[in-house]
Amino acid sequence: MAERGLVVSAPGKVILHGEHAVVHGKAALAVALGLRTFLCLRPGGEERLRVRLPGVGVLRSWDLPGLRALRGRLEADFDESKPPSAELLEALKEFAGIPAEASAPDSLAILAFLYMCLAISAKYGDVPSADIVVWSELPTGAGLGSSAAYAVCLAAALLRTCGAISCPLKDGETTARWTEEEMTLINSWAFQGERVIHGNPSGVDNAVATWGGALRYQSGKIKSLKRVPTLRILLTNTKVPRSTKVLVVGVKEKILKFPAIMNPVLDSIDAISQECQSVLEAMPANPSPEYYPVLEELFDINQHHLNVIGVGHPSLDRLCRVTASHGLHSKLTGAGGGGCGITLLRPDTTLLAVEAAKRDLCACGFECWETDIGAPGVTLHSSSSLNAQVLHALSES
Amino acid sequence: MAERGLVVSAPGKVILHGEHAVVHGKAALAVALGLRTFLCLRPGGEERLRVRLPGVGVLRSWDLPGLRALRGRLEADFDESKPPSAELLEALKEFAGIPAEASAPDSLAILAFLYMCLAISAKYGDVPSADIVVWSELPTGAGLGSSAAYAVCLAAALLRTCGAISCPLKDGETTARWTEEEMTLINSWAFQGERVIHGNPSGVDNAVATWGGALRYQSGKIKSLKRVPTLRILLTNTKVPRSTKVLVVGVKEKILKFPAIMNPVLDSIDAISQECQSVLEAMPANPSPEYYPVLEELFDINQHHLNVIGVGHPSLDRLCRVTASHGLHSKLTGAGGGGCGITLLRPDTTLLAVEAAKRDLCACGFECWETDIGAPGVTLHSSSSLNAQVLHALSES
Repeated sequence: MAERGLVVSAPGKVILHGEHAVVHGKAALAVALGLRTFLCLRPGGEERLRVRLPGVGVLRSWDLPGLRALRGRLEADFDESKPPSAELLEALKEFAGIPAEASAPDSLAILAFLYMCLAISAKYGDVPSADIVVWSELPTGAGLGSSAAYAVCLAAALLRTCGAISCPLKDGETTARWTEEEMTLINSWAFQGERVIHGNPSGVDNAVATWGGALRYQSGKIKSLKRVPTLRILLTNTKVPRSTKVLVVGVKEKILKFPAIMNPVLDSIDAISQECQSVLEAMPANPSPEYYPVLEELFDINQHHLNVIGVGHPSLDRLCRVTASHGLHSKLTGAGGGGCGITLLRPDTTLLAVEAAKRDLCACGFECWETDIGAPGVTLHSSSSLNAQVLHALSES
Repeated sequence: MAERGLVVSAPGKVILHGEHAVVHGKAALAVALGLRTFLCLRPGGEERLRVRLPGVGVLRSWDLPGLRALRGRLEADFDESKPPSAELLEALKEFAGIPAEASAPDSLAILAFLYMCLAISAKYGDVPSADIVVWSELPTGAGLGSSAAYAVCLAAALLRTCGAISCPLKDGETTARWTEEEMTLINSWAFQGERVIHGNPSGVDNAVATWGGALRYQSGKIKSLKRVPTLRILLTNTKVPRSTKVLVVGVKEKILKFPAIMNPVLDSIDAISQECQSVLEAMPANPSPEYYPVLEELFDINQHHLNVIGVGHPSLDRLCRVTASHGLHSKLTGAGGGGCGITLLRPDTTLLAVEAAKRDLCACGFECWETDIGAPGVTLHSSSSLNAQVLHALSES
């Protein structure tokens, strides 16, 4: 299947430190997750654009003349430097038969898809005749940046198809990455896709999905960390639903209620992010095991702080207790109040120990992935670099 | 029994907020505990001074000529403004047959007893011919200020017997307290007793035992809070032994290792003490139930902070979890690393709920008392004010 097409992938993200504090001007560290989204684009011969998103149950196709006509009507609105206008989004919804107030992942994914196809082709070439399949190892709506990984994959594949970026894959190579300049272009279009999906995103998720590794985010500024190690982790989804908005408001109220108590906690979280960044940047040059206890201690301290600012949850306490009983250190990641937790594994943590921890976490009703952080950003693949599961998921069915 | 004698009592103490932070220049709030130490002094007719401390298995007596001769030899050394000299303590140990390096509670109690009897009588009168029994509701060595309550009772009884302070008990009254000036005298002698027992005490414990209520301690300065409410609590001893010295060193090391992370936590603890003080001082004038959720929240936050600075313990986590399952909020009190925890009860917490929590705590192997904080300081009692348990404990056997 993929032989004839183009396969790109992009990683999800987790917040290592600084969630919530970032809303109050402190730094956050976001890292690329080993769980990735894969996109396969196969040129089609029948003047149709087809998209299949098995994860959210989407299978849609449009004929190119219809898409070209729509693009012609809207062309003035495709400005990559500005958020997509409400009128543009309304026109796309009408075209795709999506209700005006739709906010389900499948509707937003179709909307972002249409926007990016039309906007990128308007700028760099024609609407492609193609079959596109996107499949992800990431759960959606869990704060793991699945929409950004989707938008980055789409941006890279569409820009490549239009010839706006090169094909970095040399003969005999299994994977390749684009130049800094090309990644900047991918990232800026992915950000537009994120805007369609989220309205007013921070840009962190698409930056992580594009550049990979780790980055620091503070007061709207995003900065990639120079070199970061790849660290083994367990990612656990408590599956307890939560509202990020409600949690953010709760933190704000706590700060207003007890400013002298809460502001120092935000300062301490900021210092944790700084310390963690220093450790991560020191590790590649000197991969000493002595760094792991420090990273673990920072996890423990921040987990207490996150409880203090009111975004803990009994399910997360349980997650931490279960992993602690296996000698492992965890913290919530992202919004908290349920959602996901991250557990650090040492290089010498045995498979047996990991399996035992996973078994106990699953027994709590949690979902658990053994993966890593510091993963590479958007990547172009030869089909031989894909494992059987990915090949199967991307195959035509 | 007590009809013919003098009965005084003094409370133990708990740290409400600020333990450990106080070592680093922050404020601590200490409050008087409903658990008290009682002393009964009965004049004897046989030129002997007898002391019985059933709690630590002490029964000693000396003839007055021997004590007078010892005092005569040492008199120059009894200076209440200076710590007891090593030579003086050595002489007292030799007299009482206590080994030079003895540090067991019974040996230190005898030493403090001898010191206070000789020093107070040297200044204000003769060595009394008396039988003294001291019995306490407080466990020893649990950081609850049992030695200070003992020293305050001894100071009050001896100063009263020597005529250095008045008998404030009027006809028909069951309890009475001394004037500010007299309490200042009691406190300064009790501090000397504490110095004999602890070497270099902060003076907080004897101040709480003398004045009762609550006090703020910061950078060596002790200040009584004006009015404080009496609050119901559960006091739980995990019975996990710990070394205060080792814990204090551990906190210092953490601050040196992560100054930018830890110093804000100390600032936050300082603000918790300040907030708690404001709430306590506002409560007597306006005993609204709305204060309790604030006090509970401050408990929860500080318990997290104490874990962050490294003085938590799995037994204390368990204590907090067990009481949380009954809707109650707890924190460690004192040194941490085991030791005691304190659980706030609301005025409307039912007896049934308290009993259920106590049952679950005892099932963990913990010892648990239902008592209160904000109790009165050193008190003179008529025997009719004593309950049967105290009367029995103080009776001659």
